[in-house]
Amino acid sequence: MVIMMKGVKDRSIDPASQEMLASASRAGLETAWDRFDKQQPQCGFGELGLCCRHCNMGPCRIDPFGEGPARGVCGADADVMAARGLLRALAAGAAAHSDHARDVALTFQMMADGRAPSYQVKDKAKMKRLAAEYGIAGDSPTMMQDLAKSVLSEFGQQQGTICFTRRAPAKRVAIWQRLGIDPRGIDREIVECLHRSHMGVDADYVNLILHGLRTALADGWGGSMIATELQDVMFGVPTPIRSRANLGVLQADSVNVIVHGHEPLLSEMIVAAAADPELIALAKSKGAAGINVAGICCTGNEVLMRHGVPVAGNFLQQELAIATGAVEAMVVDVQCVMPALQSVASCFHTKLITTSPKAKVPGATHMEFHEESALDTAREIVRAAVENYPQRNRDRVQIPDFSSEVMIGFSVEAILSALGGSLDPLLGAIKNGSVRGIAAVVGCNNPKVKQDFGHVNLVKELIKNDVLVVSTGCSAQACAKAGLLLPEAAGMAGEGLRGVCQALGIPPVLHMGSCVDISRILVACAAIANALGVDISDLPAAAAAPEWMSEKAVSIGAYAVASGVLTVLGTVPQVLGSANVTALLTKGAAGVVGGRFAVEPDPFSAARVMIDHIDSQRARLGI
Amino acid sequence: MVIMMKGVKDRSIDPASQEMLASASRAGLETAWDRFDKQQPQCGFGELGLCCRHCNMGPCRIDPFGEGPARGVCGADADVMAARGLLRALAAGAAAHSDHARDVALTFQMMADGRAPSYQVKDKAKMKRLAAEYGIAGDSPTMMQDLAKSVLSEFGQQQGTICFTRRAPAKRVAIWQRLGIDPRGIDREIVECLHRSHMGVDADYVNLILHGLRTALADGWGGSMIATELQDVMFGVPTPIRSRANLGVLQADSVNVIVHGHEPLLSEMIVAAAADPELIALAKSKGAAGINVAGICCTGNEVLMRHGVPVAGNFLQQELAIATGAVEAMVVDVQCVMPALQSVASCFHTKLITTSPKAKVPGATHMEFHEESALDTAREIVRAAVENYPQRNRDRVQIPDFSSEVMIGFSVEAILSALGGSLDPLLGAIKNGSVRGIAAVVGCNNPKVKQDFGHVNLVKELIKNDVLVVSTGCSAQACAKAGLLLPEAAGMAGEGLRGVCQALGIPPVLHMGSCVDISRILVACAAIANALGVDISDLPAAAAAPEWMSEKAVSIGAYAVASGVLTVLGTVPQVLGSANVTALLTKGAAGVVGGRFAVEPDPFSAARVMIDHIDSQRARLGI
Repeated sequence: MVIMMKGVKDRSIDPASQEMLASASRAGLETAWDRFDKQQPQCGFGELGLCCRHCNMGPCRIDPFGEGPARGVCGADADVMAARGLLRALAAGAAAHSDHARDVALTFQMMADGRAPSYQVKDKAKMKRLAAEYGIAGDSPTMMQDLAKSVLSEFGQQQGTICFTRRAPAKRVAIWQRLGIDPRGIDREIVECLHRSHMGVDADYVNLILHGLRTALADGWGGSMIATELQDVMFGVPTPIRSRANLGVLQADSVNVIVHGHEPLLSEMIVAAAADPELIALAKSKGAAGINVAGICCTGNEVLMRHGVPVAGNFLQQELAIATGAVEAMVVDVQCVMPALQSVASCFHTKLITTSPKAKVPGATHMEFHEESALDTAREIVRAAVENYPQRNRDRVQIPDFSSEVMIGFSVEAILSALGGSLDPLLGAIKNGSVRGIAAVVGCNNPKVKQDFGHVNLVKELIKNDVLVVSTGCSAQACAKAGLLLPEAAGMAGEGLRGVCQALGIPPVLHMGSCVDISRILVACAAIANALGVDISDLPAAAAAPEWMSEKAVSIGAYAVASGVLTVLGTVPQVLGSANVTALLTKGAAGVVGGRFAVEPDPFSAARVMIDHIDSQRARLGI
Repeated sequence: MVIMMKGVKDRSIDPASQEMLASASRAGLETAWDRFDKQQPQCGFGELGLCCRHCNMGPCRIDPFGEGPARGVCGADADVMAARGLLRALAAGAAAHSDHARDVALTFQMMADGRAPSYQVKDKAKMKRLAAEYGIAGDSPTMMQDLAKSVLSEFGQQQGTICFTRRAPAKRVAIWQRLGIDPRGIDREIVECLHRSHMGVDADYVNLILHGLRTALADGWGGSMIATELQDVMFGVPTPIRSRANLGVLQADSVNVIVHGHEPLLSEMIVAAAADPELIALAKSKGAAGINVAGICCTGNEVLMRHGVPVAGNFLQQELAIATGAVEAMVVDVQCVMPALQSVASCFHTKLITTSPKAKVPGATHMEFHEESALDTAREIVRAAVENYPQRNRDRVQIPDFSSEVMIGFSVEAILSALGGSLDPLLGAIKNGSVRGIAAVVGCNNPKVKQDFGHVNLVKELIKNDVLVVSTGCSAQACAKAGLLLPEAAGMAGEGLRGVCQALGIPPVLHMGSCVDISRILVACAAIANALGVDISDLPAAAAAPEWMSEKAVSIGAYAVASGVLTVLGTVPQVLGSANVTALLTKGAAGVVGGRFAVEPDPFSAARVMIDHIDSQRARLGI
């Protein structure tokens, strides 16, 4: 028993997760941590990027000790293998973000054409600003249709440039143009990644990685930014509101519906449907107090920041949420939805409901979601959850009594508003050193890291040293659970940052949204750089993904670096088998694009790397 | 010495390859076969498709014996891992073909706009036929521009259908529509493959594979077919001509320039430049008799079938060609170009010249090729080869005295012409049994199979049994070297086929072109099916890739199956770790799309599988 309790503390710093892990262990429920343990030892070739299955002459492996093969059958060496693998991972991540954005853009187009009655424009002013960027007159009667067409064309265009890349400082764009990595079209760059990494195409690791940066830029300043901006138009620009986070937000006496995945197209409708008086009445007729929607992963962030819908947890808590026995339905769309969920759900009354034609799970209930009839389907889904409430076994319900209050919703617009409408107070604070710099801490959970340990410790260390933190995704949720997303958390910050936060009434850690909303951070960086008349790579800023695991994080890291930002990875990317690729990513890149990667699993050391970088940037700027 | 000679006979049935392998072995030159041996034993997890590196919680592996882990960290089981891996391989193959097609279409557009003066329309009639398919008037003054725009739009379009898919019988299209696998846009389907195979998206192997078929259709009836058709417009529709094949086509007293890769955009220009009197004079001034261009892989097929440029060899001979010591320059573009080439080239005077911005090789000479100035660059490349002639070390020159005569150039148009302008004679021969059926034998070399053994024995067995063979790619080159591409080879055919070949003056094995030209086979199948009023899946036809290795072959196999064709693989795809995926591909698919895969490494048994299928199809048709 002591060993078990030690076990759960090795797995997570989150007390709610610890409680549920102990409970899952007693019940014999397998979780991601168990499967991770069973995978040990993981393949060393794969970990080093020295394995290749890009053709059927393989699989090929390179001996990292130099005693076995140094080349694959085709002649690919460690550099080629590692770079090709990185390129494919990055392409998959960019594809995930951009395919999300595509669905948003297609829905926006349907809405413009009057074919998606469940959706509407929530922020006409933002829409007009976007239209103006695309050169479309805000008062044109076909403005929406024209905007939809222009945005959608950027996915498929074969030549030209992507509109939002021009939000970057001119110096930055000039670097991209000089290197030939200014993206031409979102899908084209992704497809070319696959082509170049095909057997017998690109054998130059530098050339491979440069195209990877181009593709990543098409994600960050393309797909991801399109998703964020159009979501703001359709669902509203987030503004600061309060809510709660962690498994304790589940309610013992209500129908609990968890939304999980990434696209607010679905979760917005579920939230709306859950407020339907008829469905609430139905829930009451089943003996429930009401309908409680809670979120996990980025879908959770989307409805958290726009509606204050509470967050049940981050990535590694998706199985644990079901294990509370109190979830009537977990409704999922795409990305980061563990295939294992149905196994856990089948041990309880929980219905796992898949909704995307792109993402089915054997054994789950598939209720396909179409934009034309979105709210109707959402109502059917919520109804299914309500109908499932009587099947709940109350004896098995265990909801950890942990949740933290949060203040969230810090879009760029909201930050500007908090600053009084101008960046000047922030620039002043940076110049006078009250704010030493800005750090973006983002990314996933990964059982290679004790859950939330990397995020929370890195962030605490940063704010203690007067670094203002902006956060998204599962990292923001880790901070949420740790109580860092409150103005009161300024007490944990250094004196300078504390003063700024107290003056503005903001937390020292600003939740900027979901993972596609890292594009908000790019916009903020561009705005600050432009205001200072410098490039993004000149800013006293750095980024980190302390517990990253997804291929999307590879793309995010690459567009951050290509945008000029030092990016610290807390788990080791699968490239270390190539000394050349490793050196290019962690050293050489700085001379080429101004940003570079660093790998540092220890969050305290990672903070040191970031703060040192910020200090040297300040010195270079003479502030 | 005896052991070594046995060694080379185990590696290839081609006497030229055998001679060069023995020579390479004596000289201590490493070849793909050596590297393949050094890779033994290859990773069993990878071979079975039970390894996943799609996120950084991994690498994960599943124990095929059921004693170790049954799921990856995310919960992906063997079905999900194998299907996801297959989807990515297929997507990469489709990307390679389609990116090739994109370059052709972009060049066509530049030509239409007057910006690519090196290129011209060689077949106006074909261009008008294509324009008509796209609904463009053949006499419109903007016909070329409109055609270019329409074709290019199919890469990037987000919705709609791909024009050439409608060449398939209506019954076939109806199947695709019913299954939801009628492709919407080429790049979109490829990108969605990456999204679906990202961690936490599609966990249903059937759903994954269905999308794979959709993507493959976007290759076969999209990208590949666009490449073939526009290349015919720009470079001419192939018609039967004679040439020679194998390393013996290299000339001891000439400047030898090998073109290798895939896109005729480059090789057509090299062929033109090599005929430049000024460059020939320069060659003579250096003591050479002239300039001899020879091809390898599909670039070789492109200029072979249109200009009779001899073929130096297929995929596994690329290193051996350089090892002859007689190659002044190997000029490459994209795909199937071994990264190892520069190592071999550096042991000789040979210049490896890369030309594509997408495909560089460290140490090689990069002479970037742009459509605007194509012929000029080609002249510079040929000049570099000529200038390199004096560096040849005559003592090290060893050109195997093996080459075979071939008759090639059997486009669909040429076959129709050979038949007297109508399919009727062929349909008649099929109905009366002189031609028992039609087999497409295609694909690569792979050191897992003795070079050409699979191709040549399968083809011989098929024609002996009155099955007319159509062939492309490295398979066609294997047949070329084996003397099967001659009308005289009809003597090896069964009585029925022999009579037909002799009456028409055609070989029993028709070389239809490069790997993208497998689209010609689709067109032929569609035409025959339409003429008979049946679906492609009803035809007495089958396909095989006896020595496949590339991801393009995965896409090709998938579009063949999705088009209704039984497809026999000679090397084992990396999916057998999932019994469900294997059963779906080899059994279940037949009930869904009418085609299926079979795996049969032995070419004689493979022939039996194909002939049995053809016989049962004949029985079902009542012929």
